[in-house]
Amino acid sequence: MSLLVVGSVAFDGIETPHGKVDRTLGGAASYFALAASHFAPVRLVAVVGEDFTAKDEAVFRGRKIDLAGLEHAKGKSFFWAGRYSQNMNERTTLTTELNVFADFRPTLPASYVDSSFIFLGNIDPKLQRSVLDQIRGKPKVVGLDTMNYWIGDFNAELRETLKYVDILTINDDETRQLTGEHNLFRAAKQIFKMGPTTLIIKRGEHGAIMIHKNFVFSVPAYPLEEVRDPTGAGDTFAGGFMGYLAGKGRVTEQALRSAMVYGSVLASFTVERFGVERLAKVTRKEIMARARLFSKLTSFKL
Amino acid sequence: MSLLVVGSVAFDGIETPHGKVDRTLGGAASYFALAASHFAPVRLVAVVGEDFTAKDEAVFRGRKIDLAGLEHAKGKSFFWAGRYSQNMNERTTLTTELNVFADFRPTLPASYVDSSFIFLGNIDPKLQRSVLDQIRGKPKVVGLDTMNYWIGDFNAELRETLKYVDILTINDDETRQLTGEHNLFRAAKQIFKMGPTTLIIKRGEHGAIMIHKNFVFSVPAYPLEEVRDPTGAGDTFAGGFMGYLAGKGRVTEQALRSAMVYGSVLASFTVERFGVERLAKVTRKEIMARARLFSKLTSFKL
Repeated sequence: MSLLVVGSVAFDGIETPHGKVDRTLGGAASYFALAASHFAPVRLVAVVGEDFTAKDEAVFRGRKIDLAGLEHAKGKSFFWAGRYSQNMNERTTLTTELNVFADFRPTLPASYVDSSFIFLGNIDPKLQRSVLDQIRGKPKVVGLDTMNYWIGDFNAELRETLKYVDILTINDDETRQLTGEHNLFRAAKQIFKMGPTTLIIKRGEHGAIMIHKNFVFSVPAYPLEEVRDPTGAGDTFAGGFMGYLAGKGRVTEQALRSAMVYGSVLASFTVERFGVERLAKVTRKEIMARARLFSKLTSFKL
Repeated sequence: MSLLVVGSVAFDGIETPHGKVDRTLGGAASYFALAASHFAPVRLVAVVGEDFTAKDEAVFRGRKIDLAGLEHAKGKSFFWAGRYSQNMNERTTLTTELNVFADFRPTLPASYVDSSFIFLGNIDPKLQRSVLDQIRGKPKVVGLDTMNYWIGDFNAELRETLKYVDILTINDDETRQLTGEHNLFRAAKQIFKMGPTTLIIKRGEHGAIMIHKNFVFSVPAYPLEEVRDPTGAGDTFAGGFMGYLAGKGRVTEQALRSAMVYGSVLASFTVERFGVERLAKVTRKEIMARARLFSKLTSFKL
């Protein structure tokens, strides 16, 4: 089934201990769409400026990514630049130029309004809700990502949006900030009261954990000897995860578990190179091979 | 097969956000022995003072823990007191009184010298080596724990001891400190050159990862809603891990994987209560039940 994603398509400047790129295609929705498109048709809702060329767009072409919802506005695209610390666990934002993103009001093309799998990328909770308002009927699954800024300064708005969300994908700190509860399993119970039935906590090099009302599932990060650029890892994870679910068309416990693994698999490719370089090239065969290695990484007999 | 452990038997004062105990039985070798004794006979090598009473010793009695190597010295037992931060990820040492531990020179009873599974707890690398020197023949498996102090200030001594070690159990920071390499999988390759064939990185709430020359295995921490006191979790993990291996009597890939799970299972009981309170009471049945839950926590189909 089709998967709608709303979020940023941007240009990034990235500096890590392994190199530097001044300007490369980025944005949460870019990583998400590229990852998800391996499993399901993706409908992209985002805005770009006049500096977004046919060459940039080509990254999305030839895949199951519908660009009818990619608005081209006057001005420049969202630009972000950041520098990672030596251990890559911290990053400093050097530049944030919202540009056309500042006035982004997501508008769904008529062909998108029947979407049943929806992912609300990390944007203003009010805009996230406006996307849901444009959907005809009740979607099957709504996923949402957010960050400390929205949790802190737009808490009421976020809470209102969360009422319509099934799957929340955030990190440890955001989970604690949103609930005021240190223990993640107790925090999850608070979040279940807000709307979601599933909390996915993204933990970077420590993998991810899914806390569902009825079960818990944990997946490690893939062991990599070369992590060059962590940018987009979480968005790629979300794309692989939601894409797999949309591909299956139903949300069983088994599908949720497998989706976690495919999310991790896709993210492991992203971090091997800068920006979307590796993700844009990864093949179905490579994905499947690495997924099998995840089985080896975690399997045991009692 | 018998498992020899050398390390500290101590009294601890512990303060966490969940409570405070002024004095309770602790020490790495205590946690290790209690955990390991569920799987194999344990031979304890440690020193206690005159304040260590029959009542304290009773915790070890009625189990497969041989106390012939528990030296009773004049003076007081090792005492440590610490306070955990609100999130329990950091702790401050309030008191360290080495007492009888200051002059500890591990001496193996004659009945211990044929031990084939050995665990060298976190003490002076020179003393760790002196234990190996007393062993007759070549042990089957030697495990070792250490910490930043020995890695930093006694590096050459530690390196010498590591030549005789098969399995090194440390944390992320210690792995990086020992190798000067940030990436843990590259760090493991450095460590393999020092002697060990297996590196186990203990990651607290993020579980543990085993990097073996031929494979990698990851196990999450058990999802607990109540973590009251993290003291001894790593030592309990090591005890469950080494105990399981000694119980099997051979070190296959399958046994190493299962040992990681049992180590995590035992550690999950330790942190539920203060000191060894929960660990000292856990039953075989509870261990097996929680081990099965670990299977559910990590299993998926592609």
